[in-house]
Amino acid sequence: MPRQTPDSLRSETPRAKGRPRKDPALSEVRARLIRSGLEHLTERGYSAIGIDQILRDASVPKGSFYHYFQNKEAFGLALIDAYQAYFADLLEGAFDDQTLAPLDRLRLFIQRATEGMARHGYRRGCLVGNLGQEMSALPESFRQALTNVFEDWQARTASCLSEAQDAGQLTHSPDPAALAQFFWIGWEGAILRAKLEQGPEPIRLFADLFFSMLQEGEPNR
Amino acid sequence: MPRQTPDSLRSETPRAKGRPRKDPALSEVRARLIRSGLEHLTERGYSAIGIDQILRDASVPKGSFYHYFQNKEAFGLALIDAYQAYFADLLEGAFDDQTLAPLDRLRLFIQRATEGMARHGYRRGCLVGNLGQEMSALPESFRQALTNVFEDWQARTASCLSEAQDAGQLTHSPDPAALAQFFWIGWEGAILRAKLEQGPEPIRLFADLFFSMLQEGEPNR
Repeated sequence: MPRQTPDSLRSETPRAKGRPRKDPALSEVRARLIRSGLEHLTERGYSAIGIDQILRDASVPKGSFYHYFQNKEAFGLALIDAYQAYFADLLEGAFDDQTLAPLDRLRLFIQRATEGMARHGYRRGCLVGNLGQEMSALPESFRQALTNVFEDWQARTASCLSEAQDAGQLTHSPDPAALAQFFWIGWEGAILRAKLEQGPEPIRLFADLFFSMLQEGEPNR
Repeated sequence: MPRQTPDSLRSETPRAKGRPRKDPALSEVRARLIRSGLEHLTERGYSAIGIDQILRDASVPKGSFYHYFQNKEAFGLALIDAYQAYFADLLEGAFDDQTLAPLDRLRLFIQRATEGMARHGYRRGCLVGNLGQEMSALPESFRQALTNVFEDWQARTASCLSEAQDAGQLTHSPDPAALAQFFWIGWEGAILRAKLEQGPEPIRLFADLFFSMLQEGEPNR
């Protein structure tokens, strides 16, 4: 599983702003392009953004872009990879925290992700949700890439829920895989609404009812 | 509350294809533009679609477009209105069916909406979800319009859930307004995933767990 320092990609902290990525496997220019692409695509989506705008914001000449990426489609797929790696770290950072009870790890992820949205005034959503919503207008190659990301996130979440089950944190006996998919379905809806309402309330409401369901409900699957 | 025949707008049935809208309050040309716009925006979103493409598919010259709509923004707002009216009918058709128990009315809405997606090969999603996802790239005037639509759908759904509560269909005593918002948050996520996976499974999973939560869970709000 790829491990990267989230800050190197997301450019969400003052520290990361304008600094080249240190990973020797990626050139500084490629890293700047990825960072600019992630910022634009999490905020505005694929269709609304032109390569020219990304190049301008990354201060990269057009020729350099095509040195690293064959076209916008290849760039989009690289952005999905980068976002998956960043998010893998975010999820691992919470789910691997053995000092917390399993359900509190999921709560920690939600809290950190919400803080990330707050830092950008709830303008930036989830790259995978944005692209999933746009799928009918995107290159067909994106479909499997996006599905793979959701399946990765769901598998990690299902593990966390299994641990919760083993720890006696779930009142009943739901299927962790189904619950994890339910979580990610609702999560993307909650991010969409948080962007629309420019605040955390939809995420909070979704999380509250999801946890109450886990602890007091009994999915009939 | 505006009442319209859904077929007149959604152009989802063979009957409606290529036929002018009969409502005397709207001209035939305007109705063709709205229909074409709804088809394009539910499938590909606002940013990916140009007015030229909508005009071509509606066989309407550019001059006529600007007779009816000042610009793309005004057209987008008219599409939100039209979609809200169409969806109000869809919801009312299910929620007002007194032959069904309240929760079965919500199930009927889900079934009909899923059938609607299936008719288009799961390429077309929810106009309001698409635009909500794109909000950061859209005219600011869309934000309130989209929020109003969600609030309308949530209020109708909350009424249905209140009736379910009165009818003893809910095991515990959730807050219908919070549950209705939870439903619409999850619903938009489920539609997104159904488009991505090109099938009904995400909607089915979301609905199954939502109903199990209603009948066996107890939201802690």
